[in-house]
Amino acid sequence: MYRTHTCGELRIEHQNQTVTLSGWVQKVRNLGAMTFIDLRDRYGITQLVIEEQSDSSVREIAAQLGREYVIQATGTVIPRAAKNTKIPTGEIEVALTQLQILNRSELPPFTIEEHSDGGDDLRMKYRFLDLRRKPLQEAMQLRHRMAHEVRNYLDEHGFLEIETPYLIKSTPEGARDFVVPSRMNPGEFYALPQSPQTFKQLLMVSGFDRYFQIVRCFRDEDLRADRQPEFTQIDCEMSFVEREDVLQVFEGLAKRLFQRILGLQFEHSFPRITWQEAMAKYGSDKPDIRFGMTFNDLTSAVQGKGFGVFDSAEYVGAICVEGCAGYTRKQLDELTEFVKRPQVGAKGMVYVRCEANGGYKSSVDKFYTPEDLSSWASLCGAKEGDLLLLLSGARMKTLTALNELRLELGNRLGLRPHDTFAPLWVVDFPLLEWDEETQRFYAMHHPFTSPCLEDLELFDTDPGKVRANAYDFVVNGVEVGGGSIRIFDAQLQQKMFKVLGFTAEDAQKQFGFLMNAFRYGAPPHGGLAFGMDRWCALFGGADSIRDYIAFPKNNAGRDMMADSPSSISEAQLQELSLKTMPSDKSDK
Amino acid sequence: MYRTHTCGELRIEHQNQTVTLSGWVQKVRNLGAMTFIDLRDRYGITQLVIEEQSDSSVREIAAQLGREYVIQATGTVIPRAAKNTKIPTGEIEVALTQLQILNRSELPPFTIEEHSDGGDDLRMKYRFLDLRRKPLQEAMQLRHRMAHEVRNYLDEHGFLEIETPYLIKSTPEGARDFVVPSRMNPGEFYALPQSPQTFKQLLMVSGFDRYFQIVRCFRDEDLRADRQPEFTQIDCEMSFVEREDVLQVFEGLAKRLFQRILGLQFEHSFPRITWQEAMAKYGSDKPDIRFGMTFNDLTSAVQGKGFGVFDSAEYVGAICVEGCAGYTRKQLDELTEFVKRPQVGAKGMVYVRCEANGGYKSSVDKFYTPEDLSSWASLCGAKEGDLLLLLSGARMKTLTALNELRLELGNRLGLRPHDTFAPLWVVDFPLLEWDEETQRFYAMHHPFTSPCLEDLELFDTDPGKVRANAYDFVVNGVEVGGGSIRIFDAQLQQKMFKVLGFTAEDAQKQFGFLMNAFRYGAPPHGGLAFGMDRWCALFGGADSIRDYIAFPKNNAGRDMMADSPSSISEAQLQELSLKTMPSDKSDK
Repeated sequence: MYRTHTCGELRIEHQNQTVTLSGWVQKVRNLGAMTFIDLRDRYGITQLVIEEQSDSSVREIAAQLGREYVIQATGTVIPRAAKNTKIPTGEIEVALTQLQILNRSELPPFTIEEHSDGGDDLRMKYRFLDLRRKPLQEAMQLRHRMAHEVRNYLDEHGFLEIETPYLIKSTPEGARDFVVPSRMNPGEFYALPQSPQTFKQLLMVSGFDRYFQIVRCFRDEDLRADRQPEFTQIDCEMSFVEREDVLQVFEGLAKRLFQRILGLQFEHSFPRITWQEAMAKYGSDKPDIRFGMTFNDLTSAVQGKGFGVFDSAEYVGAICVEGCAGYTRKQLDELTEFVKRPQVGAKGMVYVRCEANGGYKSSVDKFYTPEDLSSWASLCGAKEGDLLLLLSGARMKTLTALNELRLELGNRLGLRPHDTFAPLWVVDFPLLEWDEETQRFYAMHHPFTSPCLEDLELFDTDPGKVRANAYDFVVNGVEVGGGSIRIFDAQLQQKMFKVLGFTAEDAQKQFGFLMNAFRYGAPPHGGLAFGMDRWCALFGGADSIRDYIAFPKNNAGRDMMADSPSSISEAQLQELSLKTMPSDKSDK
Repeated sequence: MYRTHTCGELRIEHQNQTVTLSGWVQKVRNLGAMTFIDLRDRYGITQLVIEEQSDSSVREIAAQLGREYVIQATGTVIPRAAKNTKIPTGEIEVALTQLQILNRSELPPFTIEEHSDGGDDLRMKYRFLDLRRKPLQEAMQLRHRMAHEVRNYLDEHGFLEIETPYLIKSTPEGARDFVVPSRMNPGEFYALPQSPQTFKQLLMVSGFDRYFQIVRCFRDEDLRADRQPEFTQIDCEMSFVEREDVLQVFEGLAKRLFQRILGLQFEHSFPRITWQEAMAKYGSDKPDIRFGMTFNDLTSAVQGKGFGVFDSAEYVGAICVEGCAGYTRKQLDELTEFVKRPQVGAKGMVYVRCEANGGYKSSVDKFYTPEDLSSWASLCGAKEGDLLLLLSGARMKTLTALNELRLELGNRLGLRPHDTFAPLWVVDFPLLEWDEETQRFYAMHHPFTSPCLEDLELFDTDPGKVRANAYDFVVNGVEVGGGSIRIFDAQLQQKMFKVLGFTAEDAQKQFGFLMNAFRYGAPPHGGLAFGMDRWCALFGGADSIRDYIAFPKNNAGRDMMADSPSSISEAQLQELSLKTMPSDKSDK
């Protein structure tokens, strides 16, 4: 062993002990008579000191040191003259008697500090150096602890972690698969799994009634910001359960993580709201309930007074922004600009200032009397000093825009702090989504999601109204997980495929081996999956998942460190019975 | 929840309780007045009974039941008239008051019993049914517990589990990569990792001084029996350590697993033998030391007496087979046939019977005096009643053949019981392997394995003699794990590449990004990896890893259940800028 202690370990109790430390040189301060070295490892930083009377060989070696050199240092623990209360080892330093350079370092391309001076691309290229920085060291430790707590909890609850294959069958449904050519079966391909969905359902058929896996998943999507081609799921499934059983178990898991990782105790059950309510009150199926500002439907209150925009709108909704009646013209213009951005898509915004004197000022004063405005305020629960903001138009579109406005105001008003957590379950999603373009229904979750049994009759009359027995776990406006009770009845499954426009042949081709399995006694089952990367980022207080993945890809799906993907040899292609073709995307 | 208890849970203490169970119908016995149902789930089997006086609806449903139907049954726990001492629930049965069919089952293609009547291929095709069988249920549970214990131990010892990417850069060195075409980077490919070797070394450079990962690895090899294209490793690496530190930590891990999984306590350190000694005494770098029968070098003792075969041999070795002097001519002929098989490769076998009367009988009597034979016997420590078996020829070839003979005899004599475990470390492997065909050295482990520092001088004079600072963990003749201390010094690495015949350009191309990383302060480090599948099979007492993998591939790399790999659509190929070519392997 190259050390007796780590750089985060020594305290005043170790005084007079001879210790050996190893680590990286964070900083050298040569004060002439004395030289101080900050030595860093994963556990912390310890100050080394070389005094005037130190051995000349030690002083000579110290003179050669540069940033990020790897050294081994032996000496005596002594109290510091000037304590550093910012670090746990700040009461001591180590007076060196021996010093050895284990490895030199070229000057790193950016500083290895809490806040680096390196740009994004440079830090991606030198990821191995960026990972030395404290925020990333802590991110990896958080991730390890999260995974470990998840496994302990699920093990305690009788779940078995069962590994499912990564080389699986390609199916055309859903997102695009990454494929893997098979050399031994020329012209044929494996696919990398988008999720182990089929396998976990097969495991239920096999009788493993509580399964989980922390597992890599792959999606060949055009990458939006903060998407990765490979990502990690906590994938779970249970048999002989109903929705309530699933929610109980995984609410327990979430509470365990909140408690063990963040020290937060949630005494009560997490709130549950239906998808309908989430849309009506927040305009989102993943509402951020850290703050209020829920929507008020003013449609009937505002219509019939001659204001054409409102009169012709399917929906008029308002949020009440507390204490913001004093917003300036400029601030209101900014918000109007915000809602008119194409990503938000509103045509305009109406405001009502509920002034301190009991009066109202609005951008639609000429259509509405003070009594009208007062009635709106009272419908919204607004009091003096509050600001009402109204959007109008087609219902879903307006709800969605109002959601963006609400979140923007939440940000501006500091109502979305990283260290406050508001978990909830969103339930009763629609089973099907109508696609105008292809004129067909799509499964909102996946084709094995069970409808709510009380809605079965609607299947034949109004499929769009059928609710799914599905649920999402949402924290702070982030969808952390989701799942459903599955269809285990063959006839219901046929019905579902029919509504989705699958021919029997299509269904057989794509899901044949699962449907085949279901013929031999499938138990009632359901489950869910959590996004591991996202959950870590959320707990770490970060917006991006990238820092919670040791070696992420950039937005073009490239590993900038290894410079991958890359071309392979002709011989390799030939073995795979493949030819690459000139691409039409010449401007990639 | 569809049940109040599992099928493995009820005992006589539950008498008179009303319970609900769910599971699969293992067997129905209709005795006219009474019907008995064996209900099975992952936890066990419980007997249900329907009596003459039971509700007629219950009796009607019971009459419909077939094997593998999924049912939910409610009733009262009563003591059994005839106890079944073979199962933990054997003291009770459940007298049914309610019975519901949750799902029907077609007749399964083979019996779901401890020993199935289904053939290999059929069981692979219906893997989801095979997995219902007790041996496979137990295999998955063993695997879960192994992984869980590994993680707990390593977590306690300060290791972080860090996930490394599955879409990595393809490198031509080593076994063949599976590759993944990149749609977003036409003509370019990712590779699936053969191991996270490079990434774990980068993590050491990043300062994560104790890393592990239970991780899938991929090798596109022509599959021999019991190889899988995807397999799982327990992959570990440590910084600031020497060999002894690594062995201590992982010997501790192995002991923990022996204790927690198998209830076996190993008080003493595991034996360590050098590769030289392993070859000389066992003819194998993974010796099975559950039994003796080690090799005796008789080369000088047997030469110069006119027996040309021995006189011209580089090496003559003998094993002493205790108490087997009575082997018949037929038995000896069988062994001779065995060693002459091409896989073993000996030309012939010489025997010496050490008879009960103190005499010797040998197949080479005419060349050697009884005194000669007696001296051989004494060199081999043979006593009256033992049998000596001698092989001769080129040294390494003969040692290897003698190893096969020794293992064969171990099997025949019952010296290799599945429930006895003899772990050891094999150390000091050769660093390099000379390949006659290409006339160059290859790295026996990989190009980053450090030589033993005391052998550095040999590098320039006799590279073949340089020992690697490498170690294997071997149990019962199975290589369970292996690893090495790595080179972290850039100059030594250059030297290594030179000996391996890499040009600076080659080295840069293949290992550039790791070598680049090493320029910024690499710590001394080393590690190892265990074969998870193999270790599970070993602990489970099985010869094949296949039963410890939930969804394995067959020997042609096919998933027979999903019928994968399979062809993909033209559109998909086009998106990937790929064309498949007619294969020359038309007889696949």
